[in-house]
Amino acid sequence: MKLICNGLDLSDAVLTVSKALNSKTTNPVLEGIKLSASGDKLVLTATDTELTIEKTIKADVLMEGETVVTGKVFGDFVKKLEGEQVELYKPEGDKLQIRYADSNSDIQVMNAEDYPKISKNVNANYFDMKQSDFKSVVEKTVFACATDDSRPVLKGCLFEIDNDGLTVVALDGFRMSVVKKELILKTGNFKAIVPSRTLMEITRLLNKDDDVLRISVEDNALKVEVSDTVLISRLIKGDFIRYKDIMPKEFITNVRINRQMFVGSIERASVVARSEKLNVVKLEIKDGFMNVLAKSEIGTVNENIPVTVDGKDVTIAFNGRYLLDYLKTTDEEFISMNLNSPIDPCVMMPVLNTDYTYLVIPIRING
Amino acid sequence: MKLICNGLDLSDAVLTVSKALNSKTTNPVLEGIKLSASGDKLVLTATDTELTIEKTIKADVLMEGETVVTGKVFGDFVKKLEGEQVELYKPEGDKLQIRYADSNSDIQVMNAEDYPKISKNVNANYFDMKQSDFKSVVEKTVFACATDDSRPVLKGCLFEIDNDGLTVVALDGFRMSVVKKELILKTGNFKAIVPSRTLMEITRLLNKDDDVLRISVEDNALKVEVSDTVLISRLIKGDFIRYKDIMPKEFITNVRINRQMFVGSIERASVVARSEKLNVVKLEIKDGFMNVLAKSEIGTVNENIPVTVDGKDVTIAFNGRYLLDYLKTTDEEFISMNLNSPIDPCVMMPVLNTDYTYLVIPIRING
Repeated sequence: MKLICNGLDLSDAVLTVSKALNSKTTNPVLEGIKLSASGDKLVLTATDTELTIEKTIKADVLMEGETVVTGKVFGDFVKKLEGEQVELYKPEGDKLQIRYADSNSDIQVMNAEDYPKISKNVNANYFDMKQSDFKSVVEKTVFACATDDSRPVLKGCLFEIDNDGLTVVALDGFRMSVVKKELILKTGNFKAIVPSRTLMEITRLLNKDDDVLRISVEDNALKVEVSDTVLISRLIKGDFIRYKDIMPKEFITNVRINRQMFVGSIERASVVARSEKLNVVKLEIKDGFMNVLAKSEIGTVNENIPVTVDGKDVTIAFNGRYLLDYLKTTDEEFISMNLNSPIDPCVMMPVLNTDYTYLVIPIRING
Repeated sequence: MKLICNGLDLSDAVLTVSKALNSKTTNPVLEGIKLSASGDKLVLTATDTELTIEKTIKADVLMEGETVVTGKVFGDFVKKLEGEQVELYKPEGDKLQIRYADSNSDIQVMNAEDYPKISKNVNANYFDMKQSDFKSVVEKTVFACATDDSRPVLKGCLFEIDNDGLTVVALDGFRMSVVKKELILKTGNFKAIVPSRTLMEITRLLNKDDDVLRISVEDNALKVEVSDTVLISRLIKGDFIRYKDIMPKEFITNVRINRQMFVGSIERASVVARSEKLNVVKLEIKDGFMNVLAKSEIGTVNENIPVTVDGKDVTIAFNGRYLLDYLKTTDEEFISMNLNSPIDPCVMMPVLNTDYTYLVIPIRING
């Protein structure tokens, strides 16, 4: 392999694909970036076998070929190159020569034959949406994914495409976030459970909010292409929770509250509440006020926020963090809270936009 | 104690004094901020007994008094207050009531009598310099202070005020940084060893580069006042190293080199060299070039930089990090390196400004 490319292009490409590297692997080849030179292109690939990112840059290829370099070392090295032109040359042996200006440097390489094969053939189904819409649905759901391994399906977001458009769902057993969004185009009705890490890496690739993003799904794989970057990810196998069955349909109490006042109050309450494991914040709703109460050996926070209430008075307690997670991923002025009893789930949604629904399970308290 | 103050002033003051808190203390009162209300002022004080920061804000004092709150809790709490007006009220008992809008919150307090007494009477000697000059001398020296406890005097910078102005010196046994600067005013000739942490905290208080900063020194204490903030620090006792005796006066080889080219080359060399403990970078100076060489099991960096040489050829090796630390704290275009032999210290300085001198001890290598 021998090629000449632009130093900035190379360093940018290494940074992009490095997101798929697995630094905790016991297989050294997964710490590597594969370099493949052919035609007038250099393709850089990194994978942890679950997630693969591939980027193509222009190159003056003098000799086709491929090799694998340690991602961290190669990345640090090319990041420090100021020159325009970099020559990469892999003769026989286990070194890649990196030439720039008056230098004669080399780094150790690994065997490209040991590198995992990744199929890029993913196109049975796809849907198109605006990049900004995709970012928004991810931001509003991914925080509610489970982080432990006890139920693998909960470590991803369900993407459900049906006649109503796209519904994205995440839940971790304590709360559930559901967002609906219109699509520009879809090939049919289908479902996929996408790992939360994949979703976050896709959003990092996006930089043109008005551009259309196409997400292709086939069997257990997902593919997106943005500029000259291709991201391929495994999907999570299994059946997602039947989320519609969990969502209560009827409520005894409805509370409408200014979101910013609510956030401020829960944040202050959390300062004292967070010394307890569950970050318990008690809400007492009556007489047009919500009393927000938190107590611990540190002190007490006790505030009253004016609210509009329809229905019965209710006193209920939550993990304050679970409320903030939702309240901070929307910028609506007023939030509607729908309640039944101190032990039934609460369902929140913006007053003016019911496409972003959040269910949160209360904490049982005495008194 | 009872007072009303502005929420933003309060939160800003807590942030400023918190820098002096010691989170690793076994004495809980040192995790506290002392609040003292008298006249029309609230004074906030934090100390770890070595370093004390005190800030005064305006307050409507309804009842004079003082108390101590846990810095972290109080800081997190007031940071979340949006309202203009905050009332702090400490009745009998161990709680401070914090009132804002429609709230009734309180936090636990500690006994103000247990709080350390700090003398603010520091004015035997002082010197005045521009804030920007102070920042510059600190940035150019503090990185070379020792970080281990084996020789306490080396954990600070020597400030030496004599008829030539100010000389600041830091050294850790492997390298030494010496900066000279003119002063606007001084009360006489004197010396002080200032802890590196104190110097960094002072620079954080500075925000008006053209303003004059007065630094007062007495016995073993230092004091600076910036806006309504007073910082008091212990000085380090003991005799500093006789730094003039260490600095060689004569050299066999003088090399002049473009700083940016030098930095780039040492950075790339460090990518492969850093896998070794000493980060060894070998410099071979001959025939108008400096050959920069680093080798490890990762790979090889081998570059040539054009230089101007007077004197004998020389091959010498350094810890690359020690070179970068100096080269990155100056923005001069050309640097002068003065050398004797592969085992004698190298002395570096900007070609056009000999007021910033750096001595670095080479690493002995074979061949």
